[in-house]
Amino acid sequence: MNRICEIFGIEKPIIQGAMAWAATAPLVGAVSEAGGLGVLGVGFAPPEFVEMQIRETKKLTDKPFAINVFIEKEEILSRVTEVAIAEKAPVIYADTIIGLDPALTKKYIDIWHENGMKVVVKASILNDAVIADNAGADAVIIKGWEAGGHVTYETTMTLVPLAVETLSCPVIAGGGIIDGRGIVAAMALGAEGFEMGSAFLMTEECDVHPNVKEAIIKSGDMDTVVTGSCTGEPCRQVVNPLSEKLCRIEDENPKAVAADLIREMASSSLRLAMADGDMVNGAVMVGQCASRLNKVKKAADVINDAMKEAKEIIGSLSL
Amino acid sequence: MNRICEIFGIEKPIIQGAMAWAATAPLVGAVSEAGGLGVLGVGFAPPEFVEMQIRETKKLTDKPFAINVFIEKEEILSRVTEVAIAEKAPVIYADTIIGLDPALTKKYIDIWHENGMKVVVKASILNDAVIADNAGADAVIIKGWEAGGHVTYETTMTLVPLAVETLSCPVIAGGGIIDGRGIVAAMALGAEGFEMGSAFLMTEECDVHPNVKEAIIKSGDMDTVVTGSCTGEPCRQVVNPLSEKLCRIEDENPKAVAADLIREMASSSLRLAMADGDMVNGAVMVGQCASRLNKVKKAADVINDAMKEAKEIIGSLSL
Repeated sequence: MNRICEIFGIEKPIIQGAMAWAATAPLVGAVSEAGGLGVLGVGFAPPEFVEMQIRETKKLTDKPFAINVFIEKEEILSRVTEVAIAEKAPVIYADTIIGLDPALTKKYIDIWHENGMKVVVKASILNDAVIADNAGADAVIIKGWEAGGHVTYETTMTLVPLAVETLSCPVIAGGGIIDGRGIVAAMALGAEGFEMGSAFLMTEECDVHPNVKEAIIKSGDMDTVVTGSCTGEPCRQVVNPLSEKLCRIEDENPKAVAADLIREMASSSLRLAMADGDMVNGAVMVGQCASRLNKVKKAADVINDAMKEAKEIIGSLSL
Repeated sequence: MNRICEIFGIEKPIIQGAMAWAATAPLVGAVSEAGGLGVLGVGFAPPEFVEMQIRETKKLTDKPFAINVFIEKEEILSRVTEVAIAEKAPVIYADTIIGLDPALTKKYIDIWHENGMKVVVKASILNDAVIADNAGADAVIIKGWEAGGHVTYETTMTLVPLAVETLSCPVIAGGGIIDGRGIVAAMALGAEGFEMGSAFLMTEECDVHPNVKEAIIKSGDMDTVVTGSCTGEPCRQVVNPLSEKLCRIEDENPKAVAADLIREMASSSLRLAMADGDMVNGAVMVGQCASRLNKVKKAADVINDAMKEAKEIIGSLSL
């Protein structure tokens, strides 16, 4: 049996990415109901919203799902943990943008475990993955640079095998995976689970503004860009007037000046795109695989088509 | 039978990367003699040096090998083509940093074909791959962003399947491949051949300064960096005093100013590292996979170990 399925009590080793303003109850319920692990993208949300989203999700599925929390400000972490315990959330999907605090990570993984929850931690550098593994995470998600949203600099092809050879817990690969090809590639690299974000953005159940899906369909090769490296929080998004403005600021200014300007401009840009459909000032955070995403599907079809294709590819490989 | 082996007349579908100042006759001969395709990294070299290297290679192997040419300045292209024809070079490995000229590409692929040579073209954006395919290339190498030296921005996980689904000729994957894991991942993505650069830098036969191999052994996660994006010719190298200086110049200056400063500083930096072992002012161009390269092997062992591991992985995959 697949270890990721065993640990999280799911039928298919597919994890849906914790996308803020996109991974809300309708998508999460659909993914979990189809046998994957739905993840509420509520990492920056207030506890009341988290509680409401958990309750909505439970109306749609009685299978396991996860809630996204950030291992950063303990005040928020503690309040969201209370909600998670009260609502009996089955899985915690913890992360930070870059640089996990080892003590805080260990403290909360222990609390979550004591309360019967499973814990998966997302990392995009090896050191964060090691911290999570040492702190007792049940599995670690390795997010490669090709993924959407916040990333660091190592790609899936590089970081997944490095993590597999270094960690004691099972590894889930994320970044560049949208179908059976990506799943089998990740398996070859040593991953036992597969996170897809962008592919689930392109589902009927994903409650984002239609402009977002249209922008992804239109995107081809080289149509995403990483902005804000100067802030220490690089972020991949679709090339549009906002991203061009951010890049221009980075090009034309010394690093420290650019960082201040970009932080202010980027702060509510994800909401502007996802909720309001603003394709001028909003940030459509999606992976490089946007170039291969050309239609909107049902979440269950994303999972089942990918699993079917993966099995076919495995059967066809020979050297 | 594997199409890449069939086209190039080789036994194993492994192509050695065209590394300037590193891929000279001793390495090329060893790779071809072991059944892969050795490639002379003479893309920027004068025709006399190319001629000498071809002759040296022929002393070491009578199996097929390739010579690297740049589809840029026609004067050089024409003179190197004369040498290749006179010396009966079996394969041309053509590329440019970014932006192939369609007419020039077609003109020279025709000339090479008329003279009995096979042609593989390296591309790191889809558009260059399409130009090469339309011009009649026998195969295209897709080089992902995780690779060493000159790169663009799309990773192996993203660009390889996109190219496989777009092109009519077979695709060879490069970037992040050092072993059987990488080979099987690339196969899953649809590639039929596998280019390795960094792994061959780390061979006994690769005639670079020992400091280069030592720097790669020491490199871990996040120890390579892409410099010179402002010049339009981004380049991946090991983090060292030179790379830090280049990054500081990019951080502290408007783009146009930084580009001029960087071009001057970077111009002979590869030679300084590879030939002289200068780890302060020299550029050690290697892929992100440097984090997993920890020993020097024989070139034949790089090939045979990777093929053996790939077969084992294929036999072990199940979902």
